[in-house]
Amino acid sequence: MNITESKTFINYSTGILKGENVIESVRKLGDIKDIYTDKKAINRMDQDQIAYKVQMHNTENEGKEGGLYIGTSFLYPGRVGDEYFMTKGHYHQKRDTAEYYWCISGEGILLLMDETENTNAVKIYPGSLNYIQGNIAHRLVNTGENILVIGACWPSDAGHDYGSIAEHGFSVSVKSINGKPEVISR
Amino acid sequence: MNITESKTFINYSTGILKGENVIESVRKLGDIKDIYTDKKAINRMDQDQIAYKVQMHNTENEGKEGGLYIGTSFLYPGRVGDEYFMTKGHYHQKRDTAEYYWCISGEGILLLMDETENTNAVKIYPGSLNYIQGNIAHRLVNTGENILVIGACWPSDAGHDYGSIAEHGFSVSVKSINGKPEVISR
Repeated sequence: MNITESKTFINYSTGILKGENVIESVRKLGDIKDIYTDKKAINRMDQDQIAYKVQMHNTENEGKEGGLYIGTSFLYPGRVGDEYFMTKGHYHQKRDTAEYYWCISGEGILLLMDETENTNAVKIYPGSLNYIQGNIAHRLVNTGENILVIGACWPSDAGHDYGSIAEHGFSVSVKSINGKPEVISR
Repeated sequence: MNITESKTFINYSTGILKGENVIESVRKLGDIKDIYTDKKAINRMDQDQIAYKVQMHNTENEGKEGGLYIGTSFLYPGRVGDEYFMTKGHYHQKRDTAEYYWCISGEGILLLMDETENTNAVKIYPGSLNYIQGNIAHRLVNTGENILVIGACWPSDAGHDYGSIAEHGFSVSVKSINGKPEVISR
């Protein structure tokens, strides 16, 4: 019997996915300007500057119960005023679905907010593994000098609800205060 | 606001999980002797020899819909007669649930069998990423000289059905023929 070849690959030191069914999306600062508190600062910046890229391996159809996706997020370093670069953040559309995040390189903070807007901030760095339970909104913040690279696995029926975050935001901001990250109520 | 510490860690070069809620199980040759075709050879071997270890991070209760587990399998090198060391192999109890396997180190073959006993053999090595769709039994075979280390993520309601494999086996064996792995109908 023939032995076939694997068709998709993950590089552990870079997080880069390659091969069949790998798709990539890019978020520029201009796409996510509403998430930052300092409106003057964001308007002065290059709206085409890349804030982050997401790669995902996408074999299943979105919404397929029992299926999984795997992906890598590459969040660039930078600040908008005092506020560090961050992802839009989302709840899952099917609220009670979980996600794993593991940090491949860089350093940052993972914000975890429940639906009563109670927020936890968790320090992440290479090797840290975080399990995000259902019903918890999650946002990555890059507090370092290099790209923050995060691997993730989530159910293919989870979906993304960005709307709730766009409307209400997170209850905290992560800002550089005297050169150190601090988590501050908004 | 306080920034808390991550409580679980994964080492990408070794696959080792550490920290909160990490559990480990061990399979000795004697526990899995029925999976090998050469009964004389297995009975001559040390039944206490470790065939493989599995670590998993287990926050959710088994059976929790929407939850996930992450784990690492460490499959030792060796043979029983001509047949390479392998895992028991299983379907998921909730049949239509998927799983990701990514190879961290070593080399081997991933056997994938559907319920009509149609089997695929896929070559795996560091960096290969395999998506195992629902309704597919999966078994790891170590065809190399070193430990085969595989990372995995699967839904916490998937469950393990070892019984179907114990009863019917896989439709193929992976054997060393003139020093090279070949996949042979049983």
